Amino acid sequence: MEAISIGLLGLGTVGSGVVKIIENHQDKLMHQVGCPIKVKKILVKDLNKERAVKIDNEKLTTDPDEILYDPEIDVIIEVMGGMKETKNYMIKALRNRKHIVTANKDLMAVHGSELLTIASENECDLFYEASVAGGIPILRSLVDGLASDRITKMMGIVNGTTNFILTKMSKHGSAYEEVLKEAQVLGYAEADPTSDVEGLDAARKMTILATLGFSMKIELDDVKVEGITRITEEDLRYGRQLGYTMKLIGIAHREGEKVDVSVQPTLLADTHPLASVQDEFNAVYVYGEAVGETMFYGPGAGSLPTATAVVSDLVGVMKNMRLGVTGKNSVTPQYKKQLKEPSEIYSKYFLRLHVRDEVGVFANITSVFSEHRVSFEKILQMPLKEKEYAEIVLVTHQASLQDYEDILVKLRDLQAVKTIESSYRVEGSANV
Amino acid sequence: MEAISIGLLGLGTVGSGVVKIIENHQDKLMHQVGCPIKVKKILVKDLNKERAVKIDNEKLTTDPDEILYDPEIDVIIEVMGGMKETKNYMIKALRNRKHIVTANKDLMAVHGSELLTIASENECDLFYEASVAGGIPILRSLVDGLASDRITKMMGIVNGTTNFILTKMSKHGSAYEEVLKEAQVLGYAEADPTSDVEGLDAARKMTILATLGFSMKIELDDVKVEGITRITEEDLRYGRQLGYTMKLIGIAHREGEKVDVSVQPTLLADTHPLASVQDEFNAVYVYGEAVGETMFYGPGAGSLPTATAVVSDLVGVMKNMRLGVTGKNSVTPQYKKQLKEPSEIYSKYFLRLHVRDEVGVFANITSVFSEHRVSFEKILQMPLKEKEYAEIVLVTHQASLQDYEDILVKLRDLQAVKTIESSYRVEGSANV
Repeated sequence: MEAISIGLLGLGTVGSGVVKIIENHQDKLMHQVGCPIKVKKILVKDLNKERAVKIDNEKLTTDPDEILYDPEIDVIIEVMGGMKETKNYMIKALRNRKHIVTANKDLMAVHGSELLTIASENECDLFYEASVAGGIPILRSLVDGLASDRITKMMGIVNGTTNFILTKMSKHGSAYEEVLKEAQVLGYAEADPTSDVEGLDAARKMTILATLGFSMKIELDDVKVEGITRITEEDLRYGRQLGYTMKLIGIAHREGEKVDVSVQPTLLADTHPLASVQDEFNAVYVYGEAVGETMFYGPGAGSLPTATAVVSDLVGVMKNMRLGVTGKNSVTPQYKKQLKEPSEIYSKYFLRLHVRDEVGVFANITSVFSEHRVSFEKILQMPLKEKEYAEIVLVTHQASLQDYEDILVKLRDLQAVKTIESSYRVEGSANV
Repeated sequence: MEAISIGLLGLGTVGSGVVKIIENHQDKLMHQVGCPIKVKKILVKDLNKERAVKIDNEKLTTDPDEILYDPEIDVIIEVMGGMKETKNYMIKALRNRKHIVTANKDLMAVHGSELLTIASENECDLFYEASVAGGIPILRSLVDGLASDRITKMMGIVNGTTNFILTKMSKHGSAYEEVLKEAQVLGYAEADPTSDVEGLDAARKMTILATLGFSMKIELDDVKVEGITRITEEDLRYGRQLGYTMKLIGIAHREGEKVDVSVQPTLLADTHPLASVQDEFNAVYVYGEAVGETMFYGPGAGSLPTATAVVSDLVGVMKNMRLGVTGKNSVTPQYKKQLKEPSEIYSKYFLRLHVRDEVGVFANITSVFSEHRVSFEKILQMPLKEKEYAEIVLVTHQASLQDYEDILVKLRDLQAVKTIESSYRVEGSANV
């Protein structure tokens, strides 16, 4: 086989990493795919910008059609990001029988199934390992490694920015705003951090994971999302005291035929394998009926880690090209989507309240819970500086989301409750 | 495609799991491979033994040829264990163009490359994911997920029995012999635990991992092996005090073109991701030049976890059969094996000595180290019950194995040194 020519859409952080890996590991790649890999053309916005890698200027172009319509280019690597325009490029490429490797989680979360159908119709591979958890080969593990199992639960720390912020807040007792600024200086958070800190980025990744893991077409809108911006130092301190670590966790849970997917700040028992995932690292915990507990840990972002996933996908495409079996790997979802009702979603909850420090108040509050048959795992009561108020921290046993939301409404109506300071989902049982 | 018929060699722990998963997950498997899977025949030793699964008696046979020569059987699942006889069965099967899925680490560690060659010559798949770390899809991750990277280090907790024993010893301060008995009662250790506790089982798995990860034909004899039988409660206690956890770690390390592979009890910094792998769980930590740190965690043994890996491999074979591309996946080693010399293998070491409590002794001992330019990270000295002796605990900085072994010889010759109580490899830097 002659050299394979590839086209790159984008030459930012990940694109530069892809160029570097193809150069540095050319020997290994050639041994695996049987021919050299040549980056022929790269789409960029600005021809004169300074680059992190040395690139022959003739390879750069601002005209996507020079790549999308080049008959010599067999595979396109999409690392430019973006939605509508990028999607159009990808459709053009697939219709021109070009295989695609992409790191674009936004696009795959929203238009993944449409694009995969077009790929399959054109006998093209469309691989997207890099879209979830950077360097961790989690999509392959779900699809191939655990192919024979029935996956019932996935829990992911799939956003490095928020995990970095929560780790620093926990370790140093710093406030959210302060750590966010540090993360921005270090390059772990963007100037506009909304998509990360509001949980949207994690929700996109959970959409992709749940669709693959449950073989069911989960949409981004199906995912309940809550970010980390309202987490306070008090919450972290109480969590620690009770044996829990605060993490932004994506949970996809299947019971019977029904599923629910959510991204929420979660107090995770310190004994859980995910609780020790620090800083900007990612990890995905997968529970399968037969295999039991597994976890996949690694860098969730960064130039070279993400590029490793991209180029490994490229190797997969090239092996398929050699065997003449491209476009045969994607499995259409097996099950019709069925989402759980709030009455079917169970969790434990952490609740922090400020209440009047008067006789009977505690009984008032707990009776709201017992009306819904929700009992407690832990209860703390502490005096507050304002003498007439006290702080109550509750950790419930399992309760349905429906019941819990009804309880919150009733608590807000109680005269004795001044404020509901915070409320989080709780996972696992702490030893403390 | 009609039903695929498979033959099973063996119906023990893993074999029963395979039968269960094929029954319980028939729907998912059929969706993926496009046809039903039928277990046609199972080789057993005793037709009348009671089984963990319900099996039609007509399916059982004591004659291997009924499976190996059955033209209807396309895939053979080898879960009987054993070496010579099993190898002959596998060769017969491959020559009859039957694909094989095996969980046999002993066989693959010793005869893997021979068997893979025969498989490839006969256009057959030979998959063996289950042979290393049970339910963790680590072999696929090395070969596919990290295909584009250059792997420089692998560290594995790949034996559940010894990890269970060391976890219990660490948590409860119990003695080795006591915990071994408990493990035997619970079924985590065999009546003859030699292969596990002497590190041989882990060495076989490291042979397979190193061969794949470094693309180099590593042999079992290349692996330096030391078991856990001489680890004492004192060693664990000192380790804890210094911020280290004792684990039986397989390390495969590549520097430049040279590698070394070993299995040894290792004091691992508490901050290392492997340090929190408890009980009978397994984990493999992989360091790649581009991806950086990754870790794969899960159950290392057990009926259903191991069977998950076996049946996921079966799905892989069946997908390849459908596409007509069996026997094309194995990549022959790219590099010629080059093992490091003892002078090229670097590590930190923990050393515990009993010495005469006299003036000048400490200077005597440390001067042996400085002759070899080895310095210390930590030093502890404690009095012993026998008044004239003291206990010294040293943690060195990086030293070559050559230097360290020379130092041990010299220390043994010193009059002031009564005994070298223990000596372990140290990995990572503790925060303590």
